[in-house]
Amino acid sequence: MNSELSSLRVQDVGEQGLLKILHDYCPPEIIGDDAAVISPQPGQSLVVTTDVLIDNVHFSEITTSAEDAGWRAAAANLSDLAAMGASPLGITVGLGLPGSVCVSWVERLYRGITDCLQQYNTSIVGGDVVRSPVITVAITAIGQAYPHRIIRRNQAKVGDAIVVTGVHGASRAGLELLVHPELQTSLSEEDTKALIRAHQRPRPRLDVLPILWQILESHAFSTKLSPVAGMDSSDGLADAVIQICRASGVGAVIEYTQIPFPKAFQGWLTNEQILEYTLYGGEDFELVLCLPKQLAEQFVQQLDKNARIVGRITEGSTVLLHDESKKILDKVLSLNRGFQHFG
Amino acid sequence: MNSELSSLRVQDVGEQGLLKILHDYCPPEIIGDDAAVISPQPGQSLVVTTDVLIDNVHFSEITTSAEDAGWRAAAANLSDLAAMGASPLGITVGLGLPGSVCVSWVERLYRGITDCLQQYNTSIVGGDVVRSPVITVAITAIGQAYPHRIIRRNQAKVGDAIVVTGVHGASRAGLELLVHPELQTSLSEEDTKALIRAHQRPRPRLDVLPILWQILESHAFSTKLSPVAGMDSSDGLADAVIQICRASGVGAVIEYTQIPFPKAFQGWLTNEQILEYTLYGGEDFELVLCLPKQLAEQFVQQLDKNARIVGRITEGSTVLLHDESKKILDKVLSLNRGFQHFG
Repeated sequence: MNSELSSLRVQDVGEQGLLKILHDYCPPEIIGDDAAVISPQPGQSLVVTTDVLIDNVHFSEITTSAEDAGWRAAAANLSDLAAMGASPLGITVGLGLPGSVCVSWVERLYRGITDCLQQYNTSIVGGDVVRSPVITVAITAIGQAYPHRIIRRNQAKVGDAIVVTGVHGASRAGLELLVHPELQTSLSEEDTKALIRAHQRPRPRLDVLPILWQILESHAFSTKLSPVAGMDSSDGLADAVIQICRASGVGAVIEYTQIPFPKAFQGWLTNEQILEYTLYGGEDFELVLCLPKQLAEQFVQQLDKNARIVGRITEGSTVLLHDESKKILDKVLSLNRGFQHFG
Repeated sequence: MNSELSSLRVQDVGEQGLLKILHDYCPPEIIGDDAAVISPQPGQSLVVTTDVLIDNVHFSEITTSAEDAGWRAAAANLSDLAAMGASPLGITVGLGLPGSVCVSWVERLYRGITDCLQQYNTSIVGGDVVRSPVITVAITAIGQAYPHRIIRRNQAKVGDAIVVTGVHGASRAGLELLVHPELQTSLSEEDTKALIRAHQRPRPRLDVLPILWQILESHAFSTKLSPVAGMDSSDGLADAVIQICRASGVGAVIEYTQIPFPKAFQGWLTNEQILEYTLYGGEDFELVLCLPKQLAEQFVQQLDKNARIVGRITEGSTVLLHDESKKILDKVLSLNRGFQHFG
């Protein structure tokens, strides 16, 4: 370590900078996806993902009840498994708690976690509880996948279609409605509820995997390396496409008019806001997948109407937002609207 | 939930009390061992264990460098795997960090973790880094075992010999030497170093498993349910024996004169202190195993001289400390010297 580095503090390098430094301590093959892959025996892959959530950083009592905090934490981890093409085997929950926290709060957190897990036929398989000055929730999810079905970020190929499994921007809109209740006045009660629910109870898209496998098998892809690249849109649609392109050494064009968003946005948000929410909102936990166009079309047909081909993988390295309707000027998307949790 | 429970705080029920309440949210079969067992497919068991460590609760800069904190955290989790009869597949590390922490501190923590893991041919396979007001280290270890070799707490049988794989009390003595350096004056430099090292760099006893399997196979136990019960002595030897007895519905007699402790204790500590350190010291991370006497004798012979048969499983439910040499009066051991982290 050189002396310049030794004086650096975590706040100087940020979350991503620190992760980069720490990558040197991990085997190189496990870095860079939503989750790590380990292979205990031939023909089997375990997929492991871990998240740490801190009170007032990742959730707050204003926008998140204990049940919702639990659901969201479980959902985020299951989404990381889905993004790798894995089905869940179970999760562990490590809790750090101040002594003054109500037992009922902890129970409600656990109820939220298990409510989510039950929807996906999985459960809490281990845990730890310790004293801490701040509420801390550390979740590790373990899943299982077939090695030839692992979905990685670095497998996107020029010509692939880019598919999203559902609308984007809903979670961000729900958060805005919670923080600024005055925004609700111009929305129906039903729409308001649906958007808030999208934020509080996001659904990891494990349900689309069997459909995807069936299509791959019907094209005799079943025994080859996966023809699907992808990740989830937990940090936003723009982030997902850019990360996939970086990892795969390709570029992309996203068609502005093809990005699915909640109907309620029309007449409620400006075009600028819609673009902001759908591209950078985050936490929709949809899958963003790149696959040959023919397969993508079949796949989208079998999902609900909000699944859509939103663009294509191109040569080069830029991710371009293109508008066929010419309402907006083409623009190059960048990561700089993303989150950096250290400040 | 009744109203009495809803007003309870975490500090009212303690760590163990809270875990008991939270057990209702987990499948019943996974509770009560050092780690949970999941079975992705027939013939295979995954063993998962998770620990959360908080600055100034589980480690402090006085007694623990960043490297040592990392080593100890990794060792504790690997020891939980060893206690279940599992070999490690990898660990995940979730970090919560104040922005003011030096990057070099985090690197030293990681170096300590990976130094330990390398000794056991395993590695960090995933992680997360987030902002937190207090340094938090959440580790989850994943191991693999054959279902018929899983070592559980609830399988001890009347007549089994109780084996410890090494000395007890060393880690506690090392901690005392760090906190009270004046105690070092009556010890050789070599002994002081060895005891402090036992505290700072404990070794999970994954190395004894192949020896144990070989002995079981030579007795044609290989395809039956494991004839071995046990856990590790992370919370002390007394705690381990009592937990095994409770889970198995049996009692035990521990022979005072058979408990192995570091030679340096003789002439340095009083008999009372030796008893206290060996029985309740904790963090020696040896294995405490119960198995048929013939197998136990063979097992102990193949380990180093500090492995010892320290007692036997009896009917009833009391754990008795017996002294053949009559230096001390027989006494019933209880858990009340153990740790409760909430206060």
